[in-house]
Amino acid sequence: MNYCSNCGEPVRLGIPPGDDRNRYLCDHCGIIHYQNPKMVVGCIPEWEDKILLCRRSIEPQYGKWTLPAGYLENGETVADGAQREAFEEARVRMASMKAFALFNLAFVNQIYFMFRGPMAAPDVAAGEESLSVALFTEDRIPWDELAFTVMRETLIRYFQDRKQGAFSFHMGDIAPEPKPFETRNRAGLNTTR
Amino acid sequence: MNYCSNCGEPVRLGIPPGDDRNRYLCDHCGIIHYQNPKMVVGCIPEWEDKILLCRRSIEPQYGKWTLPAGYLENGETVADGAQREAFEEARVRMASMKAFALFNLAFVNQIYFMFRGPMAAPDVAAGEESLSVALFTEDRIPWDELAFTVMRETLIRYFQDRKQGAFSFHMGDIAPEPKPFETRNRAGLNTTR
Repeated sequence: MNYCSNCGEPVRLGIPPGDDRNRYLCDHCGIIHYQNPKMVVGCIPEWEDKILLCRRSIEPQYGKWTLPAGYLENGETVADGAQREAFEEARVRMASMKAFALFNLAFVNQIYFMFRGPMAAPDVAAGEESLSVALFTEDRIPWDELAFTVMRETLIRYFQDRKQGAFSFHMGDIAPEPKPFETRNRAGLNTTR
Repeated sequence: MNYCSNCGEPVRLGIPPGDDRNRYLCDHCGIIHYQNPKMVVGCIPEWEDKILLCRRSIEPQYGKWTLPAGYLENGETVADGAQREAFEEARVRMASMKAFALFNLAFVNQIYFMFRGPMAAPDVAAGEESLSVALFTEDRIPWDELAFTVMRETLIRYFQDRKQGAFSFHMGDIAPEPKPFETRNRAGLNTTR
């Protein structure tokens, strides 16, 4: 941020009176420009014993598989947003959804909120941000071709709950991706990559 | 938003290619300025059979009671933010916290995420945004002096769960406050004010 979005004059970083952290301040019109985390909302669409994944047609992670998810828009509920993303990316209508997990990606100022639930029908088709979409049984999940750590962590918890016969609400922290020389421990639920 | 925060030139509203809604666009530097909902995080601090409320020293709702809560900051997890707010507003340290409820306030582009859990000690004191803080048993909750509908809805669910002996994760939608002539139905869990 270089300029005030209200009056167009240059902003500076400074701690406002009564505050304890730097904000972008406009000395011309007096506005304090707060910047806050964004929510990403998505879902695990289920059909019988399969779940839906989308193969990304956009960067980052072009060609990798992910669950439908995207930024929550103004005016939406988190469920609205997750259903919109499922339709945009996979032309999926969800029959119902339950809250499944929240992940903090504090290092990129993002909070992921994921639902799970049955699709209304097994009719799926690639949306604009997907090369293809497909339904996977657990043994066919492309673990090594998943786009994002947060999606891997979501799916690990999902299949663990499913094995136990009961879904609960999960919370977790995702840290930055490890550098290439670090060991990847896909099953490590206590690690927070 | 009137000016581009990147280059300082005027912005205009328009639908970017491949998008489906209006964004603030800068024709000079090409940046699209997305605007997204903010998260408010808070908690229900418990001590034995009491919970903590704060009496607000700021507008809106000066003098009314609320649970400690505030905007999630960049770099925080939702738990970080809720603990920070509990300390800022009531000098409370939480011993532990569990996810309790998410409320959509789509009409103001806010998502509330509330925890519950025991305080580390019953030492509380009014922070800068509180006139006073106090511990309340259920029968002393100042229902008619609560600051926000979302806090009333949080507390209704909290005491309902507590009576049943089991806490679950709740989701709800809050609609704008009713106009003064509308009947208030405090116990109406199916209403979404």
